[in-house]
Amino acid sequence: MTPDCPLPHHEDERVLLGHGAGGRLTAELLASLVLPAAAVPPGPLEDAALLPTAPELVLSTDGFVVSPLFFPGGDIGSLAVHGTVNDLAMRGAEPLALAVALIVEEGLPLAELRAVVESLGKAAAGAGAAVITGDTKVVGRGAADRLFVTTTGVGRRLPGLCPSAARARPGDAILLSGALGRHGAAVLSTREGLGFETDLTSDSRPLHRLVRALAPLGEAVHTLRDPTRGGLAATLNEIAEASGTGAEIEESVLPVPEPVAAVCDLLGLDPLHVANEGCLVAYVPERHADEALAALRSVPEGAEAVRIGDVVAEHPRRVVLRTRIGSHRVVDVPVGEQLPRIC
Amino acid sequence: MTPDCPLPHHEDERVLLGHGAGGRLTAELLASLVLPAAAVPPGPLEDAALLPTAPELVLSTDGFVVSPLFFPGGDIGSLAVHGTVNDLAMRGAEPLALAVALIVEEGLPLAELRAVVESLGKAAAGAGAAVITGDTKVVGRGAADRLFVTTTGVGRRLPGLCPSAARARPGDAILLSGALGRHGAAVLSTREGLGFETDLTSDSRPLHRLVRALAPLGEAVHTLRDPTRGGLAATLNEIAEASGTGAEIEESVLPVPEPVAAVCDLLGLDPLHVANEGCLVAYVPERHADEALAALRSVPEGAEAVRIGDVVAEHPRRVVLRTRIGSHRVVDVPVGEQLPRIC
Repeated sequence: MTPDCPLPHHEDERVLLGHGAGGRLTAELLASLVLPAAAVPPGPLEDAALLPTAPELVLSTDGFVVSPLFFPGGDIGSLAVHGTVNDLAMRGAEPLALAVALIVEEGLPLAELRAVVESLGKAAAGAGAAVITGDTKVVGRGAADRLFVTTTGVGRRLPGLCPSAARARPGDAILLSGALGRHGAAVLSTREGLGFETDLTSDSRPLHRLVRALAPLGEAVHTLRDPTRGGLAATLNEIAEASGTGAEIEESVLPVPEPVAAVCDLLGLDPLHVANEGCLVAYVPERHADEALAALRSVPEGAEAVRIGDVVAEHPRRVVLRTRIGSHRVVDVPVGEQLPRIC
Repeated sequence: MTPDCPLPHHEDERVLLGHGAGGRLTAELLASLVLPAAAVPPGPLEDAALLPTAPELVLSTDGFVVSPLFFPGGDIGSLAVHGTVNDLAMRGAEPLALAVALIVEEGLPLAELRAVVESLGKAAAGAGAAVITGDTKVVGRGAADRLFVTTTGVGRRLPGLCPSAARARPGDAILLSGALGRHGAAVLSTREGLGFETDLTSDSRPLHRLVRALAPLGEAVHTLRDPTRGGLAATLNEIAEASGTGAEIEESVLPVPEPVAAVCDLLGLDPLHVANEGCLVAYVPERHADEALAALRSVPEGAEAVRIGDVVAEHPRRVVLRTRIGSHRVVDVPVGEQLPRIC
């Protein structure tokens, strides 16, 4: 190309499915287009944002487009509550109120709409969060796929907690509260008709009680994240990126249930890339690791909590897996779309 | 039907386009299905809800599905900001922060996405509201129509203001801040290719400055509402319903611009049913009417403010129009869908 050539421009580019997968394409779309265009204040991307002039309150929004609407262990209604409650929880907050916006395709059976909204109401009550406002739009047949739910939550931070992806530090222990891959594998096996349905249910559940259990550790809770879209791999990489640290995790201790491993084998997926909706990673200094692990295990949803690795100063912004045979491999962020419409 | 017959049940019923039109079908769907299922606290339906334990803060969410994405006077990005800022304003609040959730159809040109998000960011800055968090989902081709935007706002109430649809009282003057029908007529004429485009632009704009101008009246501002979906007819009826009052309005003073009247004539629409996105109705006691009108007119977006009628004790829950020829007719809520995807 000569220097006279015009720079390539990408105005003829289009949105790809992978732009919504929570991986590298999503990060690029956000960094290069959405965030600057919307004039979002710079800083690490967190699951929920602190309210200006009221930083004890946090705000989070999430659109849910999961297909099918009903899956083993949940549905789009309960998922839409858990997802948003968990985004608040990852900033150390308990849910105060929820707002729900429905976009409904003409022709959706009212019975299905009722089932979803009832499940949503029940999940909200279960998480101690009232739905205080909402909106319903209907679009013509073919203009949406059945039902989309956008849930926004306002939460109040528990005193003393100020977790942030940017606060991970070398020497932190990395804890994981539960088994990996159940949500993604459950939705995918239903969709593909793999017949694993009876074995496998989504882990969709609220995580605020786990966070409450960690609250006595206060500032020692450096980072909390729930590994949803893009799986544990994307989450650990986001934290490494935001904090400028490296991470090393142990393959031998990663809790991957047998049915999840089977689905992943069959579909050629890495369980580290599969979405979760009911577990979190917590980063705490080494000296607080046992106390934090005990706190997580004190709550039923944290019974399987394990320590999976450590934050290191070496290889900043890179996540490394120590394999069962003692070798090391880089844990990469999925580039694009493995599991469209998983949440 | 004999008494032994089972009650009719409607589980085979489906969502209709009209369920999303802001008229009677929408009200029925909300009252019979969505609100009880989601366990929303009972009370009059307002544009925004007060936050429990922090009632100086209000929360509002709105999904935007307007088609086309770009229309004379705005686009889905600016509309999504104005709509939510205005819902907050109708509870007497100024916007504090916004959360934006995008649902994008695979294949949308990135240039269009950028144009929408830039417009959204600009509108937010114009309304003094920062977008502090967001979410982006992508669905496959045919699973959504280009782009849907859900905007949620947190606002802070101006001291002394506590407007509510339930506070309308006989003797209140009903004020309208601007001309009727521009948004709906502009979108519709674009969509139908009627060639009115050059004459007619949407009135989409933020209304919080009008509310700020009214703030010195304090508690005397009984009710504020912006007549969006379902138009002025739906709004006046909702207020009559929530407050148990009647309303009488004067046809001769209703500001319907010539191009709006022309589009309505051509398409057989009642301008009272057409959506607005840049005007409000304010209910204030008779003795404050002149002061309130002057306050509205002190702001450019309220230059055309007029008094359109009165709240009456007679015919509670009914809105009556005094026509130019001196007769009376009931102003009904549109039953279903005249203008799908107008916002």
